[in-house]
Amino acid sequence: MAKEVNPPRGNRDFLPLEKQKREQVLGVIVDTYRQHGFQQIEAPVMEDLARLTSGQGGDNEKLAFRVMKRGEELERALGDNSGADNLADLGLRYDLTVPLTRFYATNRAKLPNVFKAIQTGPVFRAERPQKGRYRQFVQCDIDIIGDSSELAEVELLNASLDALAAIGLSDATIRVNHRAILSANIAALGVAESEASSAMITIDKLDKLGVDGVSSEMEGKFGASVAAAAGEWLRSIEGVLDVPAELASVFAVVGARHPGKLRFDPTLVRGMGYYTGQIFEIEHPGSGSSIGGGGRYDGMVGRWLGQDVPAVGISIGFERAVDLVGDNLLGAAEGLVLVLEDDSAEVLASALVLQGQLIEAGEPQVRLERRPKKLNLLLENLAEQGFGRFAFVGAESAAAGLAGLQVKEIS
Amino acid sequence: MAKEVNPPRGNRDFLPLEKQKREQVLGVIVDTYRQHGFQQIEAPVMEDLARLTSGQGGDNEKLAFRVMKRGEELERALGDNSGADNLADLGLRYDLTVPLTRFYATNRAKLPNVFKAIQTGPVFRAERPQKGRYRQFVQCDIDIIGDSSELAEVELLNASLDALAAIGLSDATIRVNHRAILSANIAALGVAESEASSAMITIDKLDKLGVDGVSSEMEGKFGASVAAAAGEWLRSIEGVLDVPAELASVFAVVGARHPGKLRFDPTLVRGMGYYTGQIFEIEHPGSGSSIGGGGRYDGMVGRWLGQDVPAVGISIGFERAVDLVGDNLLGAAEGLVLVLEDDSAEVLASALVLQGQLIEAGEPQVRLERRPKKLNLLLENLAEQGFGRFAFVGAESAAAGLAGLQVKEIS
Repeated sequence: MAKEVNPPRGNRDFLPLEKQKREQVLGVIVDTYRQHGFQQIEAPVMEDLARLTSGQGGDNEKLAFRVMKRGEELERALGDNSGADNLADLGLRYDLTVPLTRFYATNRAKLPNVFKAIQTGPVFRAERPQKGRYRQFVQCDIDIIGDSSELAEVELLNASLDALAAIGLSDATIRVNHRAILSANIAALGVAESEASSAMITIDKLDKLGVDGVSSEMEGKFGASVAAAAGEWLRSIEGVLDVPAELASVFAVVGARHPGKLRFDPTLVRGMGYYTGQIFEIEHPGSGSSIGGGGRYDGMVGRWLGQDVPAVGISIGFERAVDLVGDNLLGAAEGLVLVLEDDSAEVLASALVLQGQLIEAGEPQVRLERRPKKLNLLLENLAEQGFGRFAFVGAESAAAGLAGLQVKEIS
Repeated sequence: MAKEVNPPRGNRDFLPLEKQKREQVLGVIVDTYRQHGFQQIEAPVMEDLARLTSGQGGDNEKLAFRVMKRGEELERALGDNSGADNLADLGLRYDLTVPLTRFYATNRAKLPNVFKAIQTGPVFRAERPQKGRYRQFVQCDIDIIGDSSELAEVELLNASLDALAAIGLSDATIRVNHRAILSANIAALGVAESEASSAMITIDKLDKLGVDGVSSEMEGKFGASVAAAAGEWLRSIEGVLDVPAELASVFAVVGARHPGKLRFDPTLVRGMGYYTGQIFEIEHPGSGSSIGGGGRYDGMVGRWLGQDVPAVGISIGFERAVDLVGDNLLGAAEGLVLVLEDDSAEVLASALVLQGQLIEAGEPQVRLERRPKKLNLLLENLAEQGFGRFAFVGAESAAAGLAGLQVKEIS
């Protein structure tokens, strides 16, 4: 008896149809991002372990797979007996953001001032495997480095909503919040923490109601003293780039292209500690949890450079998005099977020539098969693999040429 | 002063234009393979270390990056003090063939009888970094599992030559040999079977050493009589080479579609010990070393199944192929830059709407930029990034619409 043979725990194999779907979904997302002027880059799968565990990665740092030192360095480390930490020098990336900040620090001289990056690729986390959680999975990020204005947020949100619509997830919406500052401002008005969200909802109407309108609604909710403070505060920041105004402009501009797709959510938090400004979370009615997210992380890129560099990014959770995408993106079974009627070199040569001509004529997939004893079984199998038609190639096929090929549907 | 920040030794970052070229070349290769009826699959980057070091991978096994155990298992292994080998449980794949055999063993029940696989992806080798040799690089394989006939070889060679032509490398040729012929020739020289692989390693240097150099190395290893026989043999097959019968049909059939592209070379060795039949090596006049290769490895897939499964594969050396591909595949600078004349929300909203309309009208890349002080510098930079045209978006643009957009070349 053969032993059970499996991929390592928490890792997956992708069979042809699933792989095709993944490639198509990823291709559409990347194409959409490219249409929006973003450019693909690639950083290595491994980074120095010290960089991956320097505090940027939050809780994910604990989940980094560690790659052992090699040769003399390993022997020295083992000889030192200085513990497990000293035995590894590299790690597998657990996200694409920490590598991006390293990439930017390495290559900034060769990059545009405002760098609009697409990164897609596998990341690795040593999580306890469970349903829907994998040790290798694909992330799909766009980031803008070098733009401190909300144009960056606008572009990210706009491109993400277009990409989601392009893969058929036009029901997706994005919740938006601003880290910390908004909460602090609201607390300063004298609003109890439990009432902060109600206050934010009112403040979110600033562009519609104006300062006086907001003050009056605040009075109804929290009384005259909070309303007066709110009015004073809002007037004091009028004309200055601050959170409510900044969010309002993002909402107005993105909303013009994608009405109703952004939702201000003052309760939105996002786990990563490195966010410094707006934060985002992508939702879809078909999924109980978020299907992506991101935010501004101005403090992080500059760390390797010793200077401040503004940065903001958003990620589509590829694995969850793929699960939501129906198989309709794949289209009909497009492949054609050429069945070789015998084993002769002549028939094989004919089949090869016909295959070449069919490809040149635009056939996307032409597969050769020797005629088996059970032809129907073969065709059924291939139909499941995306091959919907077949034709026989025999001794007379070379003379008959492409025009003589009798293509039939696999029923 | 900021510290030097680099990717780990032997690893590379890919900047936008290089990444774009790599994606295009890979896309054309994969599309061509798909046209020939092959299907993409994906296996994880990590495999169980025991599998990666079970003797299938030849010399590459020594180059596997080892991933440390985690948590209690690591503590236990450290406590055991049983040496470095016991500290790692996973490894990074050093090729795509060992993972493919595992993939097939895992999933054979769900795969067609004759399985025609495309695999592309990063592989990892802990080599001493040197020019043109990297610790992470892309391999690009096609394999046919389950077909013992030479139809499989024909399809691999045909698809490879088509793929190479599609990326502009139509000057590529493929040297072909058969392990049985090679072994018979080596035995005829008087080399013992146990020494055959050592003799193959020497004969493999024929390109570099010439007939006299090979004879002299053979003399050192096997004595004067073998060296003389080797010299005689190598001189006798210099010039015109008769194609043995088993290879004749492959040459005839592939030659009909790709005249003169296959060359029989009885001295071709290929390093891997697992080959059992025909072996291939892809050459191109622009490269001093081979740009790909493969062969039949009937004994290897069955190993995890406890049964014999015929298999044959060929790989395009992606890194070398990309180096040979000129930049012409990229095409002209196709991107369009929309320059926002001011920071107002109105202009931003107009730009976003125009961007959407331009994309729908078929523009492949539309990038937004705020107007900087030095517009020419920005445009020059973006021209280097593949953006060949620009247009201003101002206060009047919303009303003027797409028709009002004045698109200019970046000169």
